[in-house]
Amino acid sequence: MVDPNIEALFRPKSVAVIGASEKPGKIGYAIMKNLVEYGYEGKIYPVNIKGVEIRIGNRVFKSYRSILDVPDEVDMAVIVVPAKFVPQVVEEAGKKGVKVLPIISSGFGELGPEGKKVEEELVKTAHKYGMRILGPNIFGVVYTPEKLNATFGPTDVLPGPLALISQSGALGIALMGWTILEKVGLSAVVSVGNKSDIDDADLLEFFREDDNTKAILIYMEGVKDGRRFMEVAKNVSKIKPIVVIKAGRSERGAKAAASHTGSLAGSDKIYDAAFKQAGIIRAYTIEEAFDYARALSNLPEPAGENLVIITNGGGIGVMATDAAEESGLHLYDNLEDLKAFSKYMPPFGSYKNPIDLTGMAGAESYEGAIREALRNPNIHSVAVLYCQTAVLDPRDLAEIVIREYNEAGRNKPMVVAIVGGIEAKHAIDRLNEEGIPAYPEPDRAIKSLAALYRWSRWKAKQRGE
Amino acid sequence: MVDPNIEALFRPKSVAVIGASEKPGKIGYAIMKNLVEYGYEGKIYPVNIKGVEIRIGNRVFKSYRSILDVPDEVDMAVIVVPAKFVPQVVEEAGKKGVKVLPIISSGFGELGPEGKKVEEELVKTAHKYGMRILGPNIFGVVYTPEKLNATFGPTDVLPGPLALISQSGALGIALMGWTILEKVGLSAVVSVGNKSDIDDADLLEFFREDDNTKAILIYMEGVKDGRRFMEVAKNVSKIKPIVVIKAGRSERGAKAAASHTGSLAGSDKIYDAAFKQAGIIRAYTIEEAFDYARALSNLPEPAGENLVIITNGGGIGVMATDAAEESGLHLYDNLEDLKAFSKYMPPFGSYKNPIDLTGMAGAESYEGAIREALRNPNIHSVAVLYCQTAVLDPRDLAEIVIREYNEAGRNKPMVVAIVGGIEAKHAIDRLNEEGIPAYPEPDRAIKSLAALYRWSRWKAKQRGE
Repeated sequence: MVDPNIEALFRPKSVAVIGASEKPGKIGYAIMKNLVEYGYEGKIYPVNIKGVEIRIGNRVFKSYRSILDVPDEVDMAVIVVPAKFVPQVVEEAGKKGVKVLPIISSGFGELGPEGKKVEEELVKTAHKYGMRILGPNIFGVVYTPEKLNATFGPTDVLPGPLALISQSGALGIALMGWTILEKVGLSAVVSVGNKSDIDDADLLEFFREDDNTKAILIYMEGVKDGRRFMEVAKNVSKIKPIVVIKAGRSERGAKAAASHTGSLAGSDKIYDAAFKQAGIIRAYTIEEAFDYARALSNLPEPAGENLVIITNGGGIGVMATDAAEESGLHLYDNLEDLKAFSKYMPPFGSYKNPIDLTGMAGAESYEGAIREALRNPNIHSVAVLYCQTAVLDPRDLAEIVIREYNEAGRNKPMVVAIVGGIEAKHAIDRLNEEGIPAYPEPDRAIKSLAALYRWSRWKAKQRGE
Repeated sequence: MVDPNIEALFRPKSVAVIGASEKPGKIGYAIMKNLVEYGYEGKIYPVNIKGVEIRIGNRVFKSYRSILDVPDEVDMAVIVVPAKFVPQVVEEAGKKGVKVLPIISSGFGELGPEGKKVEEELVKTAHKYGMRILGPNIFGVVYTPEKLNATFGPTDVLPGPLALISQSGALGIALMGWTILEKVGLSAVVSVGNKSDIDDADLLEFFREDDNTKAILIYMEGVKDGRRFMEVAKNVSKIKPIVVIKAGRSERGAKAAASHTGSLAGSDKIYDAAFKQAGIIRAYTIEEAFDYARALSNLPEPAGENLVIITNGGGIGVMATDAAEESGLHLYDNLEDLKAFSKYMPPFGSYKNPIDLTGMAGAESYEGAIREALRNPNIHSVAVLYCQTAVLDPRDLAEIVIREYNEAGRNKPMVVAIVGGIEAKHAIDRLNEEGIPAYPEPDRAIKSLAALYRWSRWKAKQRGE
């Protein structure tokens, strides 16, 4: 069962912003603005010691001098006041019966042992009143199904099936921007900061049950309670895939991480082994993490090992074949069965997988070949590759892919790679917006599909145990 | 000395297009259009058996029925007629005294032994007249310093210091689009196709002497004369870096490559060893290849091993540190010397390399820190990292970087990584247009800098021999 306080972090019926500001440029204004502009439909109560009026577009909010003055129940109170006022504010929130407290304010555990002590007191106070704390030292929380954007990051988060958790504040906000730019659809963004109370494990437990979340991506530098995290992660991985980027894997990187977060980074080998055991898919770069997450959050699991690669260029077909072999994917090779593809290519094409439709391949070739690959039950996964040529606009190819994939019921995993210029980029964006993982080169498409296979195989192994 | 026929491939005083067409959509039209619209200033002579008129924008070209009718010298004749007419056309070009023949037409060696024989005859004819052949089965040639775009690929190639050679036609055109999208500046693009005559080695010899080219990127599936290629490559690498993407490295990929190009791909281990000996920087993906090429074609060599990383986010600093350690880069660690950076950060920043200016870092912090890093002669290379925050618009950071790098005389290598959304993307594009290698995440920036170090160390070793 999900902790109702954690539930309130994502589905609050009302939100107070303690330290709300009328001044653009202030964090206490940015959070109000994101709440309003992203379309949160619950009640919003700004709290400001001076009782100022706050204007966001056409809406004018009267602010309350204390949360105790709010004439209604408050589920979540976002705290943005300076560190020294936080203890009092937490106490008042407790009296008010608030359920969860994202504390944006910094100046606690990240400064050293003294700040750490204050942090511990905050948690004690919160627990006394049955509240949970997110943070402190965070940029906030987003939950797109509820149109909740209680952060001071970008506004226009793209809704989708991926939950993003970040330990780093600066990087987390930057990653929100990245997802908007790269069309990665998100269910949630959570900044965990100092993890004084709510940590990755608590959030994983929520996302495990959350129907709007299909996969979870975590940027972490270290974990508080390693044993519990791995236990929960393993439990969650059996249902939904988890991708982790963990910085600080080299010796010097680990030292830098320790000085940055104050948390001991721990030996990377131990992390690596624990991740594997817990079914966690590890990514080594930001790009790789989102590449994997795209496939893992959007695609169904493969029913078997037979991959078919469809291409219009020998060169990219070869690159995809390299990537497939290196990442343990099996190219389907029953030539009798594959011969069906010969209908969709000129005589000098090749139906030996990779299926080379040749540079002459137009809309009909691709349509036919994709339909055949999605139809044949002996084929379990599909990679569609395209080198931009004058024969077929990549944007038209994108429409074909979307139509065929929808008509076939999206029942086997498919990835797309389109190499080219601005039209290729638009086609890739369009596919990603439609939840079909698309990439600018074969290698990234194949490796993302391989990540899905890795998770799926791990799951099968768990069932066998 | 450079072969004058190869010279004519890049600096022709006049170009004939044999098989020029008046019909948009035809390759013989696309080449005319690119020649005109990219601004080639030499004479252009369309040759068309029917003597049609060809309109490109405001310009109208009368076409000649045969190249022999052209009332002037022709340095380069681009051949776009169907395969069966090519032998006659080559003969006529020989009589005309043409120097070099890019043969776009396909239908030769790539179809099998019979086509291969015709191809060999073409080369014999060409050599009889002292001509050289590029191709057949190519998309053409670009040389930006002469505003020459004799391809049927994209028009607006961005001028710059990188020469691109592609064995694959479809992929080569797609890569042209990629360079435009990703702001990779090119000196030349050459499609080598079947390599019946001119091959990579001939081109390398030209680029070695070409002042407009600082680095060469080759996409290859196999080489014709491996020994000669490696000899020439080693010779060129001593002066200019060469990046190679070689597809077909896995067993199945090699098989696919063999069936695609007809050329034997050869054992990948042999290639790998030979590349290393020749000082060639190998890339495994398209992205990696252009990442490396950006750094290698734009940056000066480092005078020593001391790298300094400047960041506003602990998280990306840690990721960069990981990448640096993994790719053999040395983080400068003389704290007495690094203390100078403490001026540019708040008290909770860190001048231990990575230099963490903290999330509060604005324009002045970055300006001061970058200037200090470029000024200090004990620092030999610089990586500037930025997580997009509300404090400093990444586009403003880009301007600071450009100004400081120019003022310092661009005398040590510097790479930039900016993580974020659309503003980050614009900042990255702007930096790349200015020839300062910039990337959307630390890993790619550091690994590209490491490629420059690898090449530089190889060179030093050669001098020592």
